[in-house]
Amino acid sequence: MNEARLQRVRENLAELGLSQALICDPLSIYYLTGYLTQPFERFFGLLVGEGGATLFCNRLFPDASGCGAEVVCFDDTDDPVALVAGRIDGAERLGVDKDLAARWLVPLLERGVVTDVALASAAVDAARSIKDDEERELMRRASAANDEAMGWLRSQVRSGKSDLEIAEGLLGVYRELGAEGFSFDPIVSFGANAADPHHEPDGTRGREGDVVLFDVGCLQAGYCSDMTRCFFLGEPDARAREVYELVRAANDAGRAAVRPGAVMSDIDHAARAVIEDAGYGEFFTHRLGHQIGLSVHEPGDVSAANGGQAQEGMVFSIEPGIYLEGSVGVRIEDLMLVTAEGGECLNAYPRELEVL
Amino acid sequence: MNEARLQRVRENLAELGLSQALICDPLSIYYLTGYLTQPFERFFGLLVGEGGATLFCNRLFPDASGCGAEVVCFDDTDDPVALVAGRIDGAERLGVDKDLAARWLVPLLERGVVTDVALASAAVDAARSIKDDEERELMRRASAANDEAMGWLRSQVRSGKSDLEIAEGLLGVYRELGAEGFSFDPIVSFGANAADPHHEPDGTRGREGDVVLFDVGCLQAGYCSDMTRCFFLGEPDARAREVYELVRAANDAGRAAVRPGAVMSDIDHAARAVIEDAGYGEFFTHRLGHQIGLSVHEPGDVSAANGGQAQEGMVFSIEPGIYLEGSVGVRIEDLMLVTAEGGECLNAYPRELEVL
Repeated sequence: MNEARLQRVRENLAELGLSQALICDPLSIYYLTGYLTQPFERFFGLLVGEGGATLFCNRLFPDASGCGAEVVCFDDTDDPVALVAGRIDGAERLGVDKDLAARWLVPLLERGVVTDVALASAAVDAARSIKDDEERELMRRASAANDEAMGWLRSQVRSGKSDLEIAEGLLGVYRELGAEGFSFDPIVSFGANAADPHHEPDGTRGREGDVVLFDVGCLQAGYCSDMTRCFFLGEPDARAREVYELVRAANDAGRAAVRPGAVMSDIDHAARAVIEDAGYGEFFTHRLGHQIGLSVHEPGDVSAANGGQAQEGMVFSIEPGIYLEGSVGVRIEDLMLVTAEGGECLNAYPRELEVL
Repeated sequence: MNEARLQRVRENLAELGLSQALICDPLSIYYLTGYLTQPFERFFGLLVGEGGATLFCNRLFPDASGCGAEVVCFDDTDDPVALVAGRIDGAERLGVDKDLAARWLVPLLERGVVTDVALASAAVDAARSIKDDEERELMRRASAANDEAMGWLRSQVRSGKSDLEIAEGLLGVYRELGAEGFSFDPIVSFGANAADPHHEPDGTRGREGDVVLFDVGCLQAGYCSDMTRCFFLGEPDARAREVYELVRAANDAGRAAVRPGAVMSDIDHAARAVIEDAGYGEFFTHRLGHQIGLSVHEPGDVSAANGGQAQEGMVFSIEPGIYLEGSVGVRIEDLMLVTAEGGECLNAYPRELEVL
């Protein structure tokens, strides 16, 4: 049990007017207890109250007895709702995880165990958003592995392999670097495919003059990396070069705007303005970035819609892009850690235009 | 919109005393509408009422306009709960999918849109459990591809490759056979690893005398296959041979017990008795089987706890196993379709003990 993190969650719950909450997101439970499991359809929950924390675990899961929370074990033939009900203070509102499935919440309501429920995930999300020292170091390591992997990807550009073959080969590279696996399905896009921000590898091979875009990340010691780089197979035409340099300048501007207290929408604007001023604004079709940690996408994005402030310990992506349908797409993405002084870029891989 | 399936769901809802239900499982929505998407954290739901069916779709999802349901589209900046609320009959109990997340259900309750909710998934699960002619044919094809893939796996037993390398190579084999991918992460277990029913490939290589267990399945045209076979690298010892032949006899007995009206627990017992009578009962540590279709595990298992009857159109696995910790493990698994006359085995791959 990480008592410092638990205390932060309790304080955040109190701000929401909640004295108890049932947390179900396995990564939030890992964040608080250090115990990781994937429950699939079985019940798994951490009930956080003012007095303590109780973990409800099926006996088919790995043993949780060392995690520091009180552990209540049950079998498939037991009724976990009844076990949870016995620990809930029915006189108080119950905060619930946004991921709590109806299969568990509806019986709590039907049996009258709780009458007043509210969403409580924001309390955990806010804690997870501010990485502590241990997490900052793990985020640095995951991104260092991603830098290494990008070097391997660069070496594959002229291998003749398809996007699918390169994407599948990447898994072994990550494993050799000590990562558990992908943090998301890798995007490998040759040529006009790069103009689709969510292209899935489909067997396409690179041709002379193509851009190739790699948007990739690994999961290492539980934490996610996420980086995008683009290379050219032979000399790009003038417009592709212009697009690349604009995106690179936007990435620079976005990263330079990161500091504690900076408004997230202003960081978005700092990068977007570079692209808009050059007349390409309509081709930058997504938000500038997203927070990241135990999950690859965490709440609180870097977008025009977020008036919140960057805080020391947050980690988020800066990933401007320009997508010209049927022609070329470029995105350059780095992860930034907000520090006391400004921002620390977790990716060291070069961003200069490179022709292979 | 598959009107016949929708009508079956409506009848099943009526049996639960429900006139409306909000279905969220993407596979259940695909089952009813033919429209498939993976919504991740975004809202996606099909509201089934007595008059019609309304699909709520984010505009970022693929276009659903051809699916035959009324489609209500919304953007990320819209409030999908308000859109759903406008279509719910607030005077009636609302059936909800067991997977409906609290992030959507809690606002419906907080805003007073519904006051009475009940779980409704059983109505859809019961319909999905009985495969219609189109589904039976798709299940046959997915298992035929799995038979082919098992032939490739057999060819890899003496390749010197690790469990991990074989598991990763299997994906390409499935793709060449026209499958979309795995229906679950493949289990490849050499030697004593096979005595752990849920062993994950970890780089182990086969050694002389080892058993090797392959529990694998693909997803093809949306439907799942799932089969287990074991081979031996060189002559097994007497006990391994005894275990293998017992499991094979249990598999035979389980498959022979399949017919419409057979009680699921009796089918479980038919296979289990073979193993128990030989004194190995305590080493057969799991249920005999599970239903399967669009999902690899569907509700309604073949176990001592299920007093329900097999019905024509159901498909479930028959997968007895014996696991001797630290020594050897054997499981032999086939999918059975319940027919009017008895059972049709969807897997043709041989079950005779084979030494490679």
